[in-house]
Amino acid sequence: MRQIPLPLALTMGEPAGIGGEITLQAWARRGEGVPMFFAIDDPARLAALALRLGWDVPVAAITAPENAAAVFAHALPVLPVGGTPRAQPRHPDPADATLVIAAIDRAVAEVRGGRAAALVTNPINKDALYRAGFRHPGHTEYLAELAGPGARSVMMLASPELRVVPVTIHLALRRAIAELTTAAIVEAGRVTDAALKRDFAIAHPVIAVAGLNPHAGERGALGREDQDIIAPAIAELRAAGIDARGPFAADAMFHAAARRGYDAALCMYHDQALIPVKTLDFDRAVNVTLGLPFIRTSPDHGTAFDIAGTGAARPDSLIAALKLAGDMAARRSAA
Amino acid sequence: MRQIPLPLALTMGEPAGIGGEITLQAWARRGEGVPMFFAIDDPARLAALALRLGWDVPVAAITAPENAAAVFAHALPVLPVGGTPRAQPRHPDPADATLVIAAIDRAVAEVRGGRAAALVTNPINKDALYRAGFRHPGHTEYLAELAGPGARSVMMLASPELRVVPVTIHLALRRAIAELTTAAIVEAGRVTDAALKRDFAIAHPVIAVAGLNPHAGERGALGREDQDIIAPAIAELRAAGIDARGPFAADAMFHAAARRGYDAALCMYHDQALIPVKTLDFDRAVNVTLGLPFIRTSPDHGTAFDIAGTGAARPDSLIAALKLAGDMAARRSAA
Repeated sequence: MRQIPLPLALTMGEPAGIGGEITLQAWARRGEGVPMFFAIDDPARLAALALRLGWDVPVAAITAPENAAAVFAHALPVLPVGGTPRAQPRHPDPADATLVIAAIDRAVAEVRGGRAAALVTNPINKDALYRAGFRHPGHTEYLAELAGPGARSVMMLASPELRVVPVTIHLALRRAIAELTTAAIVEAGRVTDAALKRDFAIAHPVIAVAGLNPHAGERGALGREDQDIIAPAIAELRAAGIDARGPFAADAMFHAAARRGYDAALCMYHDQALIPVKTLDFDRAVNVTLGLPFIRTSPDHGTAFDIAGTGAARPDSLIAALKLAGDMAARRSAA
Repeated sequence: MRQIPLPLALTMGEPAGIGGEITLQAWARRGEGVPMFFAIDDPARLAALALRLGWDVPVAAITAPENAAAVFAHALPVLPVGGTPRAQPRHPDPADATLVIAAIDRAVAEVRGGRAAALVTNPINKDALYRAGFRHPGHTEYLAELAGPGARSVMMLASPELRVVPVTIHLALRRAIAELTTAAIVEAGRVTDAALKRDFAIAHPVIAVAGLNPHAGERGALGREDQDIIAPAIAELRAAGIDARGPFAADAMFHAAARRGYDAALCMYHDQALIPVKTLDFDRAVNVTLGLPFIRTSPDHGTAFDIAGTGAARPDSLIAALKLAGDMAARRSAA
């Protein structure tokens, strides 16, 4: 029986971005129900950043995640990433790529080794990593590879008001339509259903599936994909005992009364999912990667180079990501 | 100098739908700032409907719009449409098509003749009209034809929180992308700018233009339309002195802080425009047709056959349409 819950592991992310300062702020606001966490970063860099911003955030280097609990009440626990980043705020340096990746690798190792409860990632900059030879399409794909064969990665955006899962993500809209398949919708629906049960403690989840075309195609008059691709996926999910419903006209799915009818919306493309969730709650949407063998959340914003180092960045999404990861971990550990 | 403002003309719409009952309710709630209006409908039908629903709404037949003012305080003024519809609630009858169209024609004639301030239309059922030989793609296109050559019709959805203008509307998403042109965006932008100045009394309107692809294409990595089609349209609008901005990532355009930065959002396809406006305010969005030589608004919902005749329909969108038409007419008349 564990007396003290495991801490969350928070990665450094791109050191030229806002990751450092929102990490400091998240710790400063720990009284607001932020679960215990440690950063994997350079302690000296974070201490210097706090000093420069005039923030009273003591930074304590720790040697193992198990030391985080003793430190967390009075200092931000930082597990050293093994080097000092060269980047200054707003100016990424490709030489930092190995440290950025080392922080992710270490966090995954701590979570998989049972020493951290979940992984929370600060934003990275893909361009900087690519210039250093990184060959994965993104953060999430890299994590899926670290997780090993059989891992899927399905993106969910979750806010207090709405959970959405885009079936296609970073594709030109034209390609997202061309590449939409019944199999991809079924796969996303299955992973979403399992996660809603295990990580969100919803015994009988309802998944609302959006149509692709205006008015969900108006019985074929405004496009065939709703009938030919989406409806068969819903039928297949239902045959598997999953309460998927639709396809619904996407413009009528996201108002308050409609949202009460389901636990997650399965959307066909990036903006169909992200417009409603970010319109309703821009600062508190959290990115959750479903389908991995461990829990991973991240704030729903990028490195924000334009304001990095100024202290203007809002930590709300990171705080929400930490809280959600903590909640998900508590449910898994109680199960 | 006019002492009494002109009344608004409200059409019957599809008599098997909810038009009659929301018209009765809009009059009953006239104390909430609803401008003076008259219905073009069958007075006996509306009186029978009020009786059946147990609503205390006296109906008074009038012979000309100028009589509406004397009646409006104590009864719903109805200019007879010239016949009795055969439809019962939920059961449209193609024989009613001529009356449905006659109500629209009469309303346009009253507005164009200077006897009504603006046109507000109840929802019609295109299937029923098509079966009777109606050959226009929809309400709006029919009005553009009645308005004569040179009239454009650009759809705006307006709520208290957001105004959106979709450049393409009722097309399969695949076709909306294929048919998107710089010229269509420029045309919609020009009509929107003129309407914001004339009808919404905004001296220097800002128009935010949405990108088509995720993250507005990420400099071409996620599609070329944002750079090749949309950016040139913005440049052309700006060269014409119109304050168009963008293209912006559509998922970051519609939260409260972002909305304060513009007066209308120009969107590339139906759901990109309608998801945010209906997510924020499902019941009070109003459809406004810009580019006609007269003012026309309508509620942003259909005939709702499933609840017609029960009294369950909410009149909020019709009331918002009447108020907005009244505001727009007052601004034109003050100009």
